[in-house]
Amino acid sequence: MAKNTPDLSDHQFSGALLGGTKPFDLSRFDPAAKPFSSGDKARDKAAVEALALELDTLQNLFYADRRFKLLVVLQGTDTSGKDGTIRGVFGQMSALGVHTVGWKAPTEPERAHDYLWRIHAQVPSAGEVMIFNRSHYEDVLVPHVNGWITPEQTKQRYAHINDFERMLTETGTVLCKFLLHISKDEQRVRLQERLDDPTKNWKFATGDLEARKQWPAYQQAYSDAVNATGTPWAPWTIVPADSKTHRNLMIASVVKQAMLGMKLRYPPSDPALKNIKVV
Amino acid sequence: MAKNTPDLSDHQFSGALLGGTKPFDLSRFDPAAKPFSSGDKARDKAAVEALALELDTLQNLFYADRRFKLLVVLQGTDTSGKDGTIRGVFGQMSALGVHTVGWKAPTEPERAHDYLWRIHAQVPSAGEVMIFNRSHYEDVLVPHVNGWITPEQTKQRYAHINDFERMLTETGTVLCKFLLHISKDEQRVRLQERLDDPTKNWKFATGDLEARKQWPAYQQAYSDAVNATGTPWAPWTIVPADSKTHRNLMIASVVKQAMLGMKLRYPPSDPALKNIKVV
Repeated sequence: MAKNTPDLSDHQFSGALLGGTKPFDLSRFDPAAKPFSSGDKARDKAAVEALALELDTLQNLFYADRRFKLLVVLQGTDTSGKDGTIRGVFGQMSALGVHTVGWKAPTEPERAHDYLWRIHAQVPSAGEVMIFNRSHYEDVLVPHVNGWITPEQTKQRYAHINDFERMLTETGTVLCKFLLHISKDEQRVRLQERLDDPTKNWKFATGDLEARKQWPAYQQAYSDAVNATGTPWAPWTIVPADSKTHRNLMIASVVKQAMLGMKLRYPPSDPALKNIKVV
Repeated sequence: MAKNTPDLSDHQFSGALLGGTKPFDLSRFDPAAKPFSSGDKARDKAAVEALALELDTLQNLFYADRRFKLLVVLQGTDTSGKDGTIRGVFGQMSALGVHTVGWKAPTEPERAHDYLWRIHAQVPSAGEVMIFNRSHYEDVLVPHVNGWITPEQTKQRYAHINDFERMLTETGTVLCKFLLHISKDEQRVRLQERLDDPTKNWKFATGDLEARKQWPAYQQAYSDAVNATGTPWAPWTIVPADSKTHRNLMIASVVKQAMLGMKLRYPPSDPALKNIKVV
């Protein structure tokens, strides 16, 4: 496989609902792998910058086209690089057509509704790129790992999510779901950095250490989530993310492919406009 | 069947997805029927008033209980009595816990999203009664009858709606869907009244006459909708509605039964409260 045309099939999972395929197992993936890398870090960095500019151009056309909605879901453990992805991959796009929601624990009015209520309200409209920093998956992963919902409820919620995502894709939304995959050791380094660097202290929450204690449970929960919701209409892409440059390179490449797949074009012109004379 | 315990099974349809059951056909229903009537109009009117008060009491408990959400969907052709139902059946309930949305043609930002987006944003929260005056069904019925969507899209949307409504019911929402069924002749009388009575002119829209020309297409579309979305979790109730009193009597009775079925109770008290001394 040539480095400039990496094979995504190794890192995409859309096998949920397809009985008999090999189940997805996150532990088979090396967080330090760099399938999209040229082998040269400086060249990779330049490639990310070039891709970010290409994505900006594509987004302008996407905004004018208005036939599609693009929903990018970034999932991954604390410090896996969700914020860095938004800066590095989507940072060149115009804020006019790109929006981000950072999902936190649900508020009281949100908890008083079904868990997809707050999510649905924020899905992208035509011509809009929406990036979810965390997502509806948190509303299954966290209660599941903490035992606040039963295994039966977890299964039920993933069925709801598949239905919801299918409806979104059948009504013009393209969904790109990324699981940012880092090693436990890399997380240790990054958390320590947040503690040691006063300018990064604000990013640290004691809850992060609690979640770190649940590392094996979360890894298993990620595998389960991908198994249950990697669908033909909304596959998961597993992103080896110990290298920040590789992470951005891979995500930018996948988003670019998704946008090229839309065959974007400017909307056809109204012939009547030809007869208008501005006086 | 005794008049005071009418049999609902004749007027409820939950057979979608159950292969082999008799398909639903609206034309078999007499809009002038009064299955819930005592046979005496004055007595029926008094019964509606008593029921509206009972519903108010139930709603107080429902609000305190907070385990459920109640979504009442009122569908029916122009002049079928949706507004009158809200006044006559739900008029005694406290505005604190009862809300109404009158769904109109979607606005531009709404059209830029999937058709369930605006609906999901308005579903009831815990302890809330939400009444939809028209609903997500309009977003299939109107484009379907006017040929703006293909039969395949109509089918697809009803599948989306079934998924959506199942998710709502699996997360604590009780759904009561009413189809208000009047005759074409009764509609003529009511539309003429809106034209002849200056105090009712504001309720008349020329679009009503356009839709009246499509009467058979809409009757067929209602049958199709009930067939496709009368599910075990969200059955349709067909309400003979030529008589306004009977319409209110029947809807109030069904809503009361739904609320009684919740086995409402005040939330259990926190034992710690016993030790608090207000000084």
